[in-house]
Amino acid sequence: MSELRRDPLSDRWVVIAENRAGRPDQYQPASARRIVAPCPFCRGQERETPPAAATYVADGQPTTDANWQVRVVPNKYPAVRADLPAYQADSAVGETRAAIGAHEVIIESPQHLVSLSGLSDRQVELTFTAYQDRLVYWQRDDRLAYGLIFKNARAAGGASLEHTHSQLIATPSVPSEVARELACAERLLGSYGACAFCRLLDEEAATGARIVAEDEHYVALCPYASRFPYETWVLPRRHASRFEDVGRQPLQRLAHLVRELICRLEQIVSELAYNYWIHTAPWGGENYQRSYHWHLEIVPRLTRMAGFELGTGYFINPVSPEQAARRLRSASDERIPSDEAKFSVQKN
Amino acid sequence: MSELRRDPLSDRWVVIAENRAGRPDQYQPASARRIVAPCPFCRGQERETPPAAATYVADGQPTTDANWQVRVVPNKYPAVRADLPAYQADSAVGETRAAIGAHEVIIESPQHLVSLSGLSDRQVELTFTAYQDRLVYWQRDDRLAYGLIFKNARAAGGASLEHTHSQLIATPSVPSEVARELACAERLLGSYGACAFCRLLDEEAATGARIVAEDEHYVALCPYASRFPYETWVLPRRHASRFEDVGRQPLQRLAHLVRELICRLEQIVSELAYNYWIHTAPWGGENYQRSYHWHLEIVPRLTRMAGFELGTGYFINPVSPEQAARRLRSASDERIPSDEAKFSVQKN
Repeated sequence: MSELRRDPLSDRWVVIAENRAGRPDQYQPASARRIVAPCPFCRGQERETPPAAATYVADGQPTTDANWQVRVVPNKYPAVRADLPAYQADSAVGETRAAIGAHEVIIESPQHLVSLSGLSDRQVELTFTAYQDRLVYWQRDDRLAYGLIFKNARAAGGASLEHTHSQLIATPSVPSEVARELACAERLLGSYGACAFCRLLDEEAATGARIVAEDEHYVALCPYASRFPYETWVLPRRHASRFEDVGRQPLQRLAHLVRELICRLEQIVSELAYNYWIHTAPWGGENYQRSYHWHLEIVPRLTRMAGFELGTGYFINPVSPEQAARRLRSASDERIPSDEAKFSVQKN
Repeated sequence: MSELRRDPLSDRWVVIAENRAGRPDQYQPASARRIVAPCPFCRGQERETPPAAATYVADGQPTTDANWQVRVVPNKYPAVRADLPAYQADSAVGETRAAIGAHEVIIESPQHLVSLSGLSDRQVELTFTAYQDRLVYWQRDDRLAYGLIFKNARAAGGASLEHTHSQLIATPSVPSEVARELACAERLLGSYGACAFCRLLDEEAATGARIVAEDEHYVALCPYASRFPYETWVLPRRHASRFEDVGRQPLQRLAHLVRELICRLEQIVSELAYNYWIHTAPWGGENYQRSYHWHLEIVPRLTRMAGFELGTGYFINPVSPEQAARRLRSASDERIPSDEAKFSVQKN
């Protein structure tokens, strides 16, 4: 049984997905660990996953099991699925819907690497191309309203398998965090007559205090109200509501920048657990084209969300974003190959 | 520097509290651990904490360092503080306020125990009395709008010191999670003409599928849209918006019930990390008296919040609340002393 349930007392949605309890977990203490050797995401283990939905190679050759570089597969333990019959029920205890959706894994490399920082820029670019393609693929399903691309790296980041991978989950409704941003963006567009994200970029450029890096296409900054130590967002300089529409050259630069930021974060905390996700406009219609501005949010997982955070929805962050940005600007970039160091990094 | 910051793009509040980075952490790997022996919360170490704001003894004797049973102290690494001058600033990057508030620690025992389950019912009752007293104390400060009582138990629950303790954090605004519940409660009061929580209790009683335990005062249940495996809420049967107003005898029963529920959870998962918090009506005025229904939420920390949860605000729960309630009903209560087993537990 897998279903979406809404709590009427808080308007919170949850996915009840009992099949996920059976997932292997390489990060469990050895005593509790299920056997997951060899790694199902490594080259040669393609039969351990469902058949690929898409594969990518470096230079347009026909793809085989011997040469794929990025591989997209359905999640073997899906939270949501495309093949469920629709149903909906309401009662005083909550609203219920079939857990219709898509849940895919984007395997970022045939090699057993544990962080995006270990990939080449080209490999990250292929991964980001896969993100775009899968979002475009699933938005054709008119039962679905939104697709989230996200990455969980290392145990404290929520990864159960260590081989570097990202995921896509598409859902029938626009998730609450995204809906909150959309509502703010529309309200602020009404007040300012311009995109609030564009205005924020202008303000941040004026002081520079929270800017980590920038190039002709993007600005990376630690947001003023950062929830987590070293939280870093990447925003396109030019207004655009949809990540899916980013062209080839800016996507290359994005790949380089995100990898560089993760290298810098790992310089500050080695073996850092982190998440990132992409917030893009919801599917269907021209909505939010003027007000919303897609962006990628990277959150290191150094603090634990505990009773206060869960009970209030507030966050406590022991590292100010000004301090975080200063440290990230001066973090050594020694793991970034010099032939790709065209990227101009703001030094303090 | 400690301040409250609101992100204009999401309306999210964060507390930037750099002083908290210096906290000792008994749960860090030994290599990274700061020396925190002896435990500052044990009897005999009273000088390791700020002076007590309140102390409790079992039977009305004058309190000394030698006989306290529950001890309330200001947090040594506060997220918010009562002694800050007020200020407020607004800009395109966010809203800022002084981090005015209260942050206290309620030490639940003079002995070095690591979970509420190790306490006697009487000791839990003293702890809950302290919760009420400190909420009443801080609501006299008219700069503050809300006080959250919460508990972090064990490392994955976010505790940095293992000695069993709870905390109070009071803030100048009503936290977003509570505001969300209040908005739902008001809306549903409008639709039903009655409290939505009372209606939910009636519906849950009709099936019994998610009920874990009940007595003349309380119902403990796994909510229909549980975010976490074995999430359990305790609600008073009779409508009441404020936890602070619970009388002595129902408070005794609550103490017994919460301790019993934690014993049961620990029967299912030994050394379980968990949080609980109390949601009560905001301070000041008669607001929400009809619509809101105070309750205590217990959340075991068996799953990790990862990129999907943080990026969407949705939760994925691999144990259905029906399954959780069934297991909790049949969990052995052997750690519950028989002289306190008056409490009637619904067996499956």
